[in-house]
Amino acid sequence: MSKTNALSHHPPPQLSPARGEGGESPERISHRAAQKDFRWDSVEMRPYKEDERALYKTITRQVLFSDPEMAGELRYFEVAPGGFSTLERHEHVHGVLILRGRGECLVGDHVKTLDTHDLVTVPPMTWHQFRATTDEPLGFLCMVNAERDKPQLPTRQDIERLRQNPAIAAFLDGKPPA
Amino acid sequence: MSKTNALSHHPPPQLSPARGEGGESPERISHRAAQKDFRWDSVEMRPYKEDERALYKTITRQVLFSDPEMAGELRYFEVAPGGFSTLERHEHVHGVLILRGRGECLVGDHVKTLDTHDLVTVPPMTWHQFRATTDEPLGFLCMVNAERDKPQLPTRQDIERLRQNPAIAAFLDGKPPA
Repeated sequence: MSKTNALSHHPPPQLSPARGEGGESPERISHRAAQKDFRWDSVEMRPYKEDERALYKTITRQVLFSDPEMAGELRYFEVAPGGFSTLERHEHVHGVLILRGRGECLVGDHVKTLDTHDLVTVPPMTWHQFRATTDEPLGFLCMVNAERDKPQLPTRQDIERLRQNPAIAAFLDGKPPA
Repeated sequence: MSKTNALSHHPPPQLSPARGEGGESPERISHRAAQKDFRWDSVEMRPYKEDERALYKTITRQVLFSDPEMAGELRYFEVAPGGFSTLERHEHVHGVLILRGRGECLVGDHVKTLDTHDLVTVPPMTWHQFRATTDEPLGFLCMVNAERDKPQLPTRQDIERLRQNPAIAAFLDGKPPA
């Protein structure tokens, strides 16, 4: 079982402390305007199309806040229609706010239907996955600790155990709830 | 000069760690649905109407994520049309995303016009204030460290210095930029 995961590598801090008041240094830009379609000025978008193990599908990541003086990071993930995030678990907690569209998520033993601005908390060591189950993208903010453990991927046994729940099996197959 | 501020008291942690997988304990609810008008299930709204020193006006706070295992907190503030947040500074950094409406903010020596989904970073010890300058509410997410210093309020001398900049004086008076 691999414990590494291209989606979840902790990005190196991209910002260094501002030197004094004003915050107009290029290292810490005080105002970054929203562009069209959930992009932002001075924020790099990293796409993840599909991996050979089908661990994720058509998801992008933009790191909105990552600062050496902040203990948390805020990222924006967007899943294209039919896409999904990696099924994974880890010790660190996720605080998620749906920013765009609708979809579903698995958190532990529960499949949840998500609407715009809903909040999702993923507790430690809890299997979770987000899916864009409608014809529009599912975009969400995710707050995490800057210092955090790497995600764990499910073993075949983990998947089999999850699939014993019919609602979770349907979710993992991208089917509507029975 | 008072260094305390009703708006900025650090709320006591309202959540305790979940006991195992699933996260359905009342202490850590895995899914909280968005209600109408930027309210959320199981999230208390704290209103701050106006204080006698006119330090803030018609602003509400909702703590969306505050968890003993998260180093950051995510709050949602909403300012009614014509209202404003406290003019203050502190060592801790703010990471702000405009979730609703438009407005303006002061960050250091700069007045910025804000649109929905814009990002604002407030560096350490930088005077800042958010104002709802249109006819709609200005709502924003604000990520902070869970452990943080208390805000400092401006002295008369601080205000006088800021007002030497005509754009900042107009901003503080709630007037459109010259």
